[in-house]
Amino acid sequence: MSNPTAAMLVIGDEILSGRTRDTNTHHLANALTGHGIRLSQVRIVSDDHQAIVGAVRALGAQFDSVFTSGGIGPTHDDITVEAVAEAFGVSVAVRADARAILQAHYDRQGLELNDARLRMARIPRGATLIENPVSAAPGFSLRNVHVMAGVPAVFQVMVASILPTLTGGVPLRSQVLNIPRGEGAIAGYLGQLAGAHPEVSIGCYPYLRDGIHGAHIVVRSSAGAAVDAVIGKLAAQFPEAE
Amino acid sequence: MSNPTAAMLVIGDEILSGRTRDTNTHHLANALTGHGIRLSQVRIVSDDHQAIVGAVRALGAQFDSVFTSGGIGPTHDDITVEAVAEAFGVSVAVRADARAILQAHYDRQGLELNDARLRMARIPRGATLIENPVSAAPGFSLRNVHVMAGVPAVFQVMVASILPTLTGGVPLRSQVLNIPRGEGAIAGYLGQLAGAHPEVSIGCYPYLRDGIHGAHIVVRSSAGAAVDAVIGKLAAQFPEAE
Repeated sequence: MSNPTAAMLVIGDEILSGRTRDTNTHHLANALTGHGIRLSQVRIVSDDHQAIVGAVRALGAQFDSVFTSGGIGPTHDDITVEAVAEAFGVSVAVRADARAILQAHYDRQGLELNDARLRMARIPRGATLIENPVSAAPGFSLRNVHVMAGVPAVFQVMVASILPTLTGGVPLRSQVLNIPRGEGAIAGYLGQLAGAHPEVSIGCYPYLRDGIHGAHIVVRSSAGAAVDAVIGKLAAQFPEAE
Repeated sequence: MSNPTAAMLVIGDEILSGRTRDTNTHHLANALTGHGIRLSQVRIVSDDHQAIVGAVRALGAQFDSVFTSGGIGPTHDDITVEAVAEAFGVSVAVRADARAILQAHYDRQGLELNDARLRMARIPRGATLIENPVSAAPGFSLRNVHVMAGVPAVFQVMVASILPTLTGGVPLRSQVLNIPRGEGAIAGYLGQLAGAHPEVSIGCYPYLRDGIHGAHIVVRSSAGAAVDAVIGKLAAQFPEAE
């Protein structure tokens, strides 16, 4: 598949400790798939400077774009900005346009733009701001890395504002068939089908529900007709599928 | 923190495409935290041989133990076993004890142990089997890598059977305080508190709910008294906290 590739980097001790469930990855996965961009890898790392620097470098070199989530707020444990800047060897400073956005936001609320809040105007040199209509503090894009907030409502508006600026590919078509039989009963036929149709990808996802073994078969391709043809063969082979 | 470290490797195109939500990571995170093992990194990679080999090698070298989820079933897209074996340079073959487990399981159900089902008895040389009371097909441990099924019910019993065999550390104590104020209003005090108490970790996790900005403050340490002391200071500073 020649569609553009992407990676997600989630920064957050709270997810690694089990305190919080990460929902941003699932949101991004669906948004990218709809845009014809292939999410190829996800990493979740802790609030650790070197772990973030290493992951940004590795993912930025390997994939067309990288999306990060978390660690850009005003508190002492928000260390993503410095780490991303170091990954690319650039400096960080309070930037006038980011400061003006925050100043206007806090003025409207009658709050002071104190030192902590001003940290959110610290932007790596050469970055482009990502708008945040929810809570003002901007994200930023530096080279192919898009740095966004961890709060889901803010993450989602930032994704929505970046996505149209990225070159997408042909969105993959996919269809799902639910076969209420164990994988072992269908694996032989599926393997033959996959061998005969290299133009599609056929995934088999088993489930166990009320003691019944079954499998969802997902057929994917950028060519809709190929998906339809393979789904037709599967439906003929397994009449109980739905 | 000197507790043992671990990584999770999720193998699955269905998660990267957004079709399925990964729930195994959250389950493992809580199980490890309770056992005093620190989940330090998570990676999600696609059903791609080289991606799996690379991730197993990288994580296996960096962390005390690695847990994988997905890709050990009977179908053509189940490629985890071969990839883990290649990561350690060992061969794979149908093993008598694994075959006997499957034979007994399918005999009980009056089903044939066909070629596809027999694939689930293919085990890397030198591995130890992980029991699967739910659906028989075993996982395995090879060196410090524990290879488990992706189906959550099976993943969870496999985690339960491995965990007691691993050396745990002192479980971290943690307490949470909910402060109904924006991060910017509390960040200054939090930073001072974190500087004065290097024996605890203080995380600040903002939320936005019904238009109200607030933050959960999580204080963690292996020393319970230190956690209590810091939570006491926070409660005194922010009387509206709960």
